[in-house]
Amino acid sequence: MWSEHRILRTLRVRYAQLPHVLPALLSVIGEEGGDYGEITIVRVDARRVVRDVTVFSDSVEHFRRIVARIEALDDVEILEVRDEVLEMHQGGKIAVRSRYTVDSVRALRRVYTPGVAEVCRLIADEPDLAWRYTAITHLVAIVTDGTAVLGLGDIGPVAGMPVMEGKAALMESLVGLSGMPVLLQTKDPRRIIETVEAIAPTFAAIQLEDISAPRCFEIEEALAERLDRPVMHDDQHGTAVVVLSVLLTAMRRLGRDLGSVRIGQIGLGAAGMAIARLAMKVSGSAVLGADLDRDAVARLERYGGTGSTIPEIMANCDVVVATTGAPGLIAPGMIREGQIVLALSNPVPEIEPDAALEAGAAFAADGKTVNNVLGFPGILRGVVDARAPRITDEMYLAAAHAIADRTPQDKLVPDPLDKELHRAVARAVARTALDQGLARADLTGYFSETAETSSCAP
Amino acid sequence: MWSEHRILRTLRVRYAQLPHVLPALLSVIGEEGGDYGEITIVRVDARRVVRDVTVFSDSVEHFRRIVARIEALDDVEILEVRDEVLEMHQGGKIAVRSRYTVDSVRALRRVYTPGVAEVCRLIADEPDLAWRYTAITHLVAIVTDGTAVLGLGDIGPVAGMPVMEGKAALMESLVGLSGMPVLLQTKDPRRIIETVEAIAPTFAAIQLEDISAPRCFEIEEALAERLDRPVMHDDQHGTAVVVLSVLLTAMRRLGRDLGSVRIGQIGLGAAGMAIARLAMKVSGSAVLGADLDRDAVARLERYGGTGSTIPEIMANCDVVVATTGAPGLIAPGMIREGQIVLALSNPVPEIEPDAALEAGAAFAADGKTVNNVLGFPGILRGVVDARAPRITDEMYLAAAHAIADRTPQDKLVPDPLDKELHRAVARAVARTALDQGLARADLTGYFSETAETSSCAP
Repeated sequence: MWSEHRILRTLRVRYAQLPHVLPALLSVIGEEGGDYGEITIVRVDARRVVRDVTVFSDSVEHFRRIVARIEALDDVEILEVRDEVLEMHQGGKIAVRSRYTVDSVRALRRVYTPGVAEVCRLIADEPDLAWRYTAITHLVAIVTDGTAVLGLGDIGPVAGMPVMEGKAALMESLVGLSGMPVLLQTKDPRRIIETVEAIAPTFAAIQLEDISAPRCFEIEEALAERLDRPVMHDDQHGTAVVVLSVLLTAMRRLGRDLGSVRIGQIGLGAAGMAIARLAMKVSGSAVLGADLDRDAVARLERYGGTGSTIPEIMANCDVVVATTGAPGLIAPGMIREGQIVLALSNPVPEIEPDAALEAGAAFAADGKTVNNVLGFPGILRGVVDARAPRITDEMYLAAAHAIADRTPQDKLVPDPLDKELHRAVARAVARTALDQGLARADLTGYFSETAETSSCAP
Repeated sequence: MWSEHRILRTLRVRYAQLPHVLPALLSVIGEEGGDYGEITIVRVDARRVVRDVTVFSDSVEHFRRIVARIEALDDVEILEVRDEVLEMHQGGKIAVRSRYTVDSVRALRRVYTPGVAEVCRLIADEPDLAWRYTAITHLVAIVTDGTAVLGLGDIGPVAGMPVMEGKAALMESLVGLSGMPVLLQTKDPRRIIETVEAIAPTFAAIQLEDISAPRCFEIEEALAERLDRPVMHDDQHGTAVVVLSVLLTAMRRLGRDLGSVRIGQIGLGAAGMAIARLAMKVSGSAVLGADLDRDAVARLERYGGTGSTIPEIMANCDVVVATTGAPGLIAPGMIREGQIVLALSNPVPEIEPDAALEAGAAFAADGKTVNNVLGFPGILRGVVDARAPRITDEMYLAAAHAIADRTPQDKLVPDPLDKELHRAVARAVARTALDQGLARADLTGYFSETAETSSCAP
């Protein structure tokens, strides 16, 4: 799930110090269907102002139209167009760093030979010590074959690298994990499974990323079964956790209970299937599911769901979640009074939230609010801290509750950059691992209010 | 190749401010067969001194004997024994870091969605841009199956992790590369080859590490053939480059020429085989090789060498290199007048350099001087900067010459922590890539005196 406008540029504009000019400039961006972000002051003098304005657009052509409209304004001059995103990507966004500077014989002897040999022997004698004396304890593989990158589809793993690095950057910034992209030169599920299995000892956990359905189901299930450490396909479960947290929030606001509502899922791809499965887990009853692909419906039925159709779901369900990629699929006339409608496709939802509410929905949201960043960092931190051998549905549910618990009254989701949120998710997940007898780490003190979750920071 | 004493501890001692005490203490360490490193002052007052002394020993028992001897000294008190090596390994030595702090919506939009999508599309359209806009350009895999770790043998990949992290720490500290350990849960050469091939798009180069012979030959050759990027087994070629640089230095000092001497190689494991091959490349004539393993001798012959015996080599060769792991294999009586003898096995060489010189050798060295750190960082930096598709013998030779060129008159090798050395090696390798038509990167300005080699540092 990702936000609407794909192209981001910074315009440096100089304009006459008059009250109507900036409003006119911003209006023009909106009129052309673009959007603006940060608006910062660069310089001001008695007559003129220089500002940087971040402009969002859908394509390079779209951006050019916006620029042409701004250039046509009186009293406004474009000084520079900068592509800050590209500037920041120069040389990549991540690096593997040494925690010690090796600039002396003293350091060399401790970090490398001869000192290192004894650490190797200690671990050879007692393998568990690898979790104390190596980086394995905070390394997380971010594995992709590049078959379903953002909304761009099968662009290959190398072109998907900026997304993987972005996830790694978020892992470090938000929870102190070392996310390491692994780009796979194969789309064959068997080879993917064998490859990840072969490199698994390097990592405390495996995050699968942007692997297309239905291959992702087989791959994740096989790896979860074969490996003694957590495997999570973020596009499935990370998304499902965040969607479920929004549903929990909706239920609370409407005074309803997920156990007493009928839930329908339209679209049974990676995200939809995982949402349906998690919803069944929490509601205890079958979810109705619809998809053009019969195999997807059959898969849902194997997981305990009920195959259905879009009209049937719209007519009978209290909660409808749509993840179809089909803009405008849900006509206002299909909405039932009091329905909860999450139309999550990006960039254009199945029905706009405002239209759904107008048509009688009690609660409506689109995919812009549902950001995976809310889920995966804390979930991974929690299972890694607990050294759980796998991630259970109960852990995902605990994460969804933790997110819902921290959602402000006037919002659908909490601030994804709030580290306290991720710490709360990690604790909820680790607590569940402990309750399920799946925690292999000593979690003494981990849940105290003042405790930091562990971090690789030196 | 690594140094003699494996156990490193820091003793904090307090002793009477008298001139004979510290010498007595150090003597006791030497008498027990240990060694000492840094000796730092912690506190001094009118009567007493507190110092930290780094003590090297062969085993925990050995260290205890040294401690007992020190405790028995008059006027000396041991305040503390610290294992600084283990302290530094707590949580591992490396981490994957984000080059940008993601603590604002502004940063999130640039590092992650929506900004990242355009970078992905750019790379999808023009794959070469991955070398500009992703971390692939400085990521190097450090791949091991843990079958030949240091002198410890087959201790498995997880127990080998501290070595891999040490190499990664050196890569970053010395040449700014991002070394990423990859621990393989298989010893099957076919699976190792397939696994590395599958993850290769992630990395600018692949360093194979601590993989036992003869499997390492097959694995490296298959990968070099299949991949479009450099593959280097450090235990083979990194070692061979450093050994050759020592040979080149010996030749210069003795006024001889490698092209006019007979070279013998005793021991045809990973290092020995690579030394023989590189020596043949530079000398232009067959190297005599001996090994207990007939297959190893047959392999050398396939590479153009001549199978021989230890007595034959000792009797006929001007240069003898030994990498057998057999302490004291070469008796002084076997040394020929004027011979060049590199007895490289650790911790105890085939013949001690002093004994070899006494027996008539013109030049002698052991494995303590031959440190791989002299080679691999610059070699990798050079091929990565040139974007060479493979590493050639000519590049290895260029690296050996660069190391020899920077060897001080009174030393056998240069300072491995000198960044200028690694820059010189990188330039020599990149220059050779350019000369061989193998440079795919634009190297304009790369060889100028003032140019920095590229670095991933932000």
